Amino acid sequence: MESFTFYSPTYFVFGKESEGQTGSMVSRFGGSRVLIHYGGGSVVRSGLLDRVKASLKAEGIGFVELGGVKPNPRSGLVYEGIELCKKENVDFILAVGGGSTIDSSKAIAAGVLYDGDFWDYYCGKVIEKALPIGTILTIAAAGSEGSPDSVITREDDMMKRGASGDAIRPKFSILNPALTQTLPAFQSACGITDIMAHLYERYLTNSTEVEVTDRLIEALLLTMKHEGPRVIEDPNNYDARANIMWAGMMAHNNSCGVGRSQDWNSHNIEHELSALYDVAHGAGLAVTMPAVFRYVMNHNVMRFAQVAVRVWGCSMDFEHPEVTALEGIRRLADFLASIGMPKNFEELGAKEADIPQLVENLCCGNGREGKITGFVTLDKDDCTKIYQMMI
Amino acid sequence: MESFTFYSPTYFVFGKESEGQTGSMVSRFGGSRVLIHYGGGSVVRSGLLDRVKASLKAEGIGFVELGGVKPNPRSGLVYEGIELCKKENVDFILAVGGGSTIDSSKAIAAGVLYDGDFWDYYCGKVIEKALPIGTILTIAAAGSEGSPDSVITREDDMMKRGASGDAIRPKFSILNPALTQTLPAFQSACGITDIMAHLYERYLTNSTEVEVTDRLIEALLLTMKHEGPRVIEDPNNYDARANIMWAGMMAHNNSCGVGRSQDWNSHNIEHELSALYDVAHGAGLAVTMPAVFRYVMNHNVMRFAQVAVRVWGCSMDFEHPEVTALEGIRRLADFLASIGMPKNFEELGAKEADIPQLVENLCCGNGREGKITGFVTLDKDDCTKIYQMMI
Repeated sequence: MESFTFYSPTYFVFGKESEGQTGSMVSRFGGSRVLIHYGGGSVVRSGLLDRVKASLKAEGIGFVELGGVKPNPRSGLVYEGIELCKKENVDFILAVGGGSTIDSSKAIAAGVLYDGDFWDYYCGKVIEKALPIGTILTIAAAGSEGSPDSVITREDDMMKRGASGDAIRPKFSILNPALTQTLPAFQSACGITDIMAHLYERYLTNSTEVEVTDRLIEALLLTMKHEGPRVIEDPNNYDARANIMWAGMMAHNNSCGVGRSQDWNSHNIEHELSALYDVAHGAGLAVTMPAVFRYVMNHNVMRFAQVAVRVWGCSMDFEHPEVTALEGIRRLADFLASIGMPKNFEELGAKEADIPQLVENLCCGNGREGKITGFVTLDKDDCTKIYQMMI
Repeated sequence: MESFTFYSPTYFVFGKESEGQTGSMVSRFGGSRVLIHYGGGSVVRSGLLDRVKASLKAEGIGFVELGGVKPNPRSGLVYEGIELCKKENVDFILAVGGGSTIDSSKAIAAGVLYDGDFWDYYCGKVIEKALPIGTILTIAAAGSEGSPDSVITREDDMMKRGASGDAIRPKFSILNPALTQTLPAFQSACGITDIMAHLYERYLTNSTEVEVTDRLIEALLLTMKHEGPRVIEDPNNYDARANIMWAGMMAHNNSCGVGRSQDWNSHNIEHELSALYDVAHGAGLAVTMPAVFRYVMNHNVMRFAQVAVRVWGCSMDFEHPEVTALEGIRRLADFLASIGMPKNFEELGAKEADIPQLVENLCCGNGREGKITGFVTLDKDDCTKIYQMMI
């Protein structure tokens, strides 16, 4: 187990109708004039936006609003949000939506208090200050509601980059599982897949003696395995939604990932797919993970056998642990297919002919020098083979 | 799953030599003149106190000190600490020790900023403000390093009471597993037992549909089952100490206990034993838990069968689930005995003749009206039988 620091100071309000506490939470954290930032129609159609505004009004808190966040959120709207906040003297950013809306809100919050271009933060500059942020989560997936991270795509060149810092951690996050009951099954499944990917990326470690975090990750994977199909079967299952929502936060606030090296190569490999084809991140991960895992499995067969036995209920083949390891990956792939996720390039809408381009972007973009690092260091040849395994 | 709020804003610094960061952490959280509060000789003998002072000096932070905290910390030293802080204009409390030292520090921190008697807070008054607190943990057990709770014993009448509030949550906690390597085996085992009790008290719930927290609790129990014996066998096993230390924090910061009713009757029943005989809390819990669990088991046999199968590796007896449930309790009792914990009244130094007194204190003390509530409501007759089962 390695040394680490852990800091998760977000105040979580969890349960039915918890969005009614928006106004009091904004007050608690010092907001007096709010930017309400959100995406598209469902937040409006469902009446959520009206309830949020009513809660702010009841506390005497003024607000302006900016909708239009899209999946894989863009820099253009961030610039617009920063200008609006400055013009309107906003002192608090309220994200109403999923990971994209929260990430866009984090970028705006940091940008308002910075004289330069907010994009500097997505090129490595340390975020030292930001307006306080609150979130009202509408999909369990990205974990951004409890994390210090934000990913934005620059529109000029579609470059997708991340920033991180304690200053952009949400001060509070309101988690009402009932808000996720109206999600289409496909989006729910994408969220489930993303959460499981956050867990696998932490599980694949080169650190040793990490029993406590191994067990915590397995606990959350077992939860997803149990609750995922219940949500797909019955979208209105509040309890299954609730279990998934807390698991999604715990999967990514890093309490189960401390003291160990992590992987994140499935995310790296997937990001090129969503960049080129604009596919849903979770759908891309469903195709990516089994291929990556089969490719890197021999780097530590016992780790894959462990998750196969402990999470997927495989019998351990003590003479041939690689058989158990492979069976665990097969069960993961079958599980993802069972909740409606794509299995291959074709179902994803990706093309074999694009593989050289994907590999080039992956291994040589973002300042990388021909390889990506993680559980296993992968060069262009490795990545080519991994994409080919997805066909 | 029930509605809840969760807030755990403590900054954790974990790893070898992490006490070297004491000065910078105190500065980060605004301290300029510190009370160093600690217990007895080991903190001094080991050189830890000197290293902490050196770290404060390197940051130019002044300090005064107050040692002498005892297990089951007393009100007398709290009053002394409050006077000292006022006289010396202390603005930050630094606890160097285990749960008793941290709890005593929390009481001082609240008392300094209160005009009345600090004991009011331990009679139900809401703690609205307190000096900031930091901790340097020397035993994995109580979880006070990440909790908003404090338990103090009033010396006049040996009344043991708790207080709770966000204001007394530590701003930072420094967790260096190596500091726990010098603990006697008995104290290590008491800590392991206390952590497991914190998990069982949360596991015994009347809430339904709590898969995610069930799984998280089981994950931490499995960690203790794996790492506990390794620490007893080799006190210098840093990695086992590290896994236990993080599990101990996670067991009690309530991330695994949200959204569900909890029990705490094993703690209630044990508190009378440690009050009357001044036995170590963990040792008392080792005798108490198996008795309580056997007594209440039929309230929800499947819950006990579940932990038996998932944590203790029992085979499920589908025709007789009570057999599985009982076997799980037996394995817990055997486990606790195997790490050196007492098994009964005699080994604990308790006396059968005192049972009426224990029951009276338990069921009618602390404002209770002849019963204690939790997973099962227990009246005097129930509690008498439970104590008798410990003989």
